Amino acid sequence: MEKLKEFEPIFYPKSMAVIGASNDERKFGARFLRTLQEFGYRGALYPINPRQVEVSGLKAYPTVRDVPQPVDFAAITVPAPVVPQVLEDCLARGVKAAEIFTAGFGETGEEEGRQLEARLAEIARRGIRVIGPNCFGVYCPGGGMTLLPGADFPKETGPIAFISQSGGHAVELARQARGWGISFSKVISYGNACDINEADLLEYLAQDSDTKIIAAYIEGPRQGERFRHLVQVVSQTKPVLIWKAGLTQDGARAVNSHTASLSGEETTWDALFKQTGALRVGSLEEIIDTAVALMHLPVSTGRRVAVIGGGGGISVAATDACNQAGLHIPAFNEPLQRELKQILPPAGTAVRNPVDVGAPVVPAGIWHRIWQKVAAAEGVDTIIATQALHLFRGERWRHFFDTKGSSISDSLQIPVDIKTNSGKPVIMVLPVGGTDVDMLEAEKARRQFRDFYLRNGIPVYPSLERAARAIAKVVQYYERRAQA
Amino acid sequence: MEKLKEFEPIFYPKSMAVIGASNDERKFGARFLRTLQEFGYRGALYPINPRQVEVSGLKAYPTVRDVPQPVDFAAITVPAPVVPQVLEDCLARGVKAAEIFTAGFGETGEEEGRQLEARLAEIARRGIRVIGPNCFGVYCPGGGMTLLPGADFPKETGPIAFISQSGGHAVELARQARGWGISFSKVISYGNACDINEADLLEYLAQDSDTKIIAAYIEGPRQGERFRHLVQVVSQTKPVLIWKAGLTQDGARAVNSHTASLSGEETTWDALFKQTGALRVGSLEEIIDTAVALMHLPVSTGRRVAVIGGGGGISVAATDACNQAGLHIPAFNEPLQRELKQILPPAGTAVRNPVDVGAPVVPAGIWHRIWQKVAAAEGVDTIIATQALHLFRGERWRHFFDTKGSSISDSLQIPVDIKTNSGKPVIMVLPVGGTDVDMLEAEKARRQFRDFYLRNGIPVYPSLERAARAIAKVVQYYERRAQA
Repeated sequence: MEKLKEFEPIFYPKSMAVIGASNDERKFGARFLRTLQEFGYRGALYPINPRQVEVSGLKAYPTVRDVPQPVDFAAITVPAPVVPQVLEDCLARGVKAAEIFTAGFGETGEEEGRQLEARLAEIARRGIRVIGPNCFGVYCPGGGMTLLPGADFPKETGPIAFISQSGGHAVELARQARGWGISFSKVISYGNACDINEADLLEYLAQDSDTKIIAAYIEGPRQGERFRHLVQVVSQTKPVLIWKAGLTQDGARAVNSHTASLSGEETTWDALFKQTGALRVGSLEEIIDTAVALMHLPVSTGRRVAVIGGGGGISVAATDACNQAGLHIPAFNEPLQRELKQILPPAGTAVRNPVDVGAPVVPAGIWHRIWQKVAAAEGVDTIIATQALHLFRGERWRHFFDTKGSSISDSLQIPVDIKTNSGKPVIMVLPVGGTDVDMLEAEKARRQFRDFYLRNGIPVYPSLERAARAIAKVVQYYERRAQA
Repeated sequence: MEKLKEFEPIFYPKSMAVIGASNDERKFGARFLRTLQEFGYRGALYPINPRQVEVSGLKAYPTVRDVPQPVDFAAITVPAPVVPQVLEDCLARGVKAAEIFTAGFGETGEEEGRQLEARLAEIARRGIRVIGPNCFGVYCPGGGMTLLPGADFPKETGPIAFISQSGGHAVELARQARGWGISFSKVISYGNACDINEADLLEYLAQDSDTKIIAAYIEGPRQGERFRHLVQVVSQTKPVLIWKAGLTQDGARAVNSHTASLSGEETTWDALFKQTGALRVGSLEEIIDTAVALMHLPVSTGRRVAVIGGGGGISVAATDACNQAGLHIPAFNEPLQRELKQILPPAGTAVRNPVDVGAPVVPAGIWHRIWQKVAAAEGVDTIIATQALHLFRGERWRHFFDTKGSSISDSLQIPVDIKTNSGKPVIMVLPVGGTDVDMLEAEKARRQFRDFYLRNGIPVYPSLERAARAIAKVVQYYERRAQA
């Protein structure tokens, strides 16, 4: 548990200095301070600026050495050549950790930048932990603080941690989270990693009780072997999702100029994923999809899937998508098929699995009976259903889709009740459908229905392909953990 | 040109009968008729129903034989056992073609259904062309008609044709088109293909002057060798996109119960794509993405791509995505890099290609200068740019992203002007960003900006991955055609 204590000033700082704080809102020093204020940081805040007596309504100090009270954590935004001196000041003042936003170090590829960065590492070794340079730093709702630009980020603590060598990805994920019902324990943009690197962060998050699922965007780990070992150990208790970037030829070059990392070989990384049980992802979208599935789906989630849907060539496309992701769509036994046939019209429907109810929307009564039968099917672990209620509301569709006797809230409640009563994991697919400007009402309804399901512990995806891939990742994780 | 004449009654019928027309709006017979009326079909319409004197305000006839005027095309929605007699009536009346919506034929897997379908095929051979059974039929804006359920489908004729063995996919694609600036020449849902099959339709579309790009969703072609040959020939003049479904194990079973097709072997299809130059796609999304790229991008579109973006780890992710799709991101030469460096701040930006402007939004003046430099870069065929203007409007972002001096309309106009003046193909990426309900305003702006670019001949995608894959398909098509 040593890492918890060591990193406490970073994630739960009692006081912070913003070095380079400014009243000029175009400067990042102004933005850091204002974000902390607007986010509602409750610790002591010390703007550091030798040319101001007050910044953003707070008393300013010429240097961090002049702050009379103890400082846990400093955010540094001064120009690169000045950073080593500022960091020396922090060390002298007893600041426990610093985040260096400033870029212009190793990633420039120039000797000057490399030497500056080496000086930072040397100062850090003398007794101050450093995140960065060339990064945003930390967003930790539990610590009431964000250095990432997002005064409006969620305030709730959640199970997901994200460590990212890209500040942009860190911000983007934190920003998109709300639309997926995701809350974070910590999001950390760590840039060039002159001191604290991905292995340190992973070790910390393994011990952090708020963190249940760890995602990482990695360009090039600073301590490859230690990182590999930690991933293997941590995966036994918490899923570790890794997006390894820069494995293409041009991508490796881009990695080098972004964070001065060596991206490594494809084969090395293939071996890491194979050996450690880490889940491989390739985009922010896939991190989100997988995290949502891991948040809600139980260990009992299995590969044998029943699919319920209507229209849209659901049977074939759903089956292909599931098979391609490594899931199976077992044919229902004859008695069940007969029972389903009694519920559905004979033509234009299918009952073998997938169940094609024949239309994008069916009355709630039929929908309910289908769900009850499918939930009781033998040899099925997991249920995926597509629902397009949001697309078919209003007069314009009335004569095409008979919704007589169905109510929207009834139709939404059925999958939730089935999940609760059967104990089987349920995943919903709510397709976006049209994206023309006129369809914004439908999109609004889609998001509201999605939020309803997410609140009830049901993962929601816009396509069956994405649902199938996310479910397969959850199954892969628990299968692997059971074997290890 | 024989196919044009032969299929004219199907796509441009002067008169239509709806057999099984009903005043009961829950029945498809009522829906077909009403859709034709609401869509604005201008030919003569004859409801056929022995129990009604009037349907939907039109004089009804007991059988199609009783219609006093000639009938070009009949839509048949009566129960399966009655369909053969109805089709005989059509033949006797001189109806030139029929579409059979009714399901319950070969796809049931039962002897009775197979025999019924064989009778339809036999009647067709005696002088009436048949689409179906088990399908929606035709949407042809040029003929002023749709049998697909979409009274609100676009009325404009466009360059894309879609032939689909799934009615659901046909409706879905037609419905989603508006959001992508896509208009259709024809969309055809052809189901079990007892008479007219994918090869016939392909032959027709090859001759159809409205059709420039052909997409197909195929479960199992009825005349495999003829189809393969036609794909090869047609690909020389029009791109042919094929989504072959049911190649997974469970998918083959689903294909059989959907349209009674044999899905074939993966290797057979691999060979077809290799030999014919058809473009392989795997979802409606990919059909749309590729069609949009083919609509707008010129033959000169090449693999050497310059990327302009800001934030979000753009450099590495964009480069990986392009490389994975088979596109290259050549490093700019030193003089160009120096020029770009003079425009951008030194830290937190990149100029080697991708160009990372350092923030999701930059002032229009800087944006313009960057575009001018990149458009003039040597060894670059194609420009992709990400733009997140829609995400960063309003007070909440003011202090994070300096947009002083920039106007939204200026920033939108710049890529259009560069495309026009440089002649280089430009592709825009407008990311969806957050999907929480509060973000609907941003989504509205995104769709408006997207429509602006599409109107100006610039393809737009929500992610760089999708943009890169679509561009690669266009390059693949023109490269292949040049070699053949």
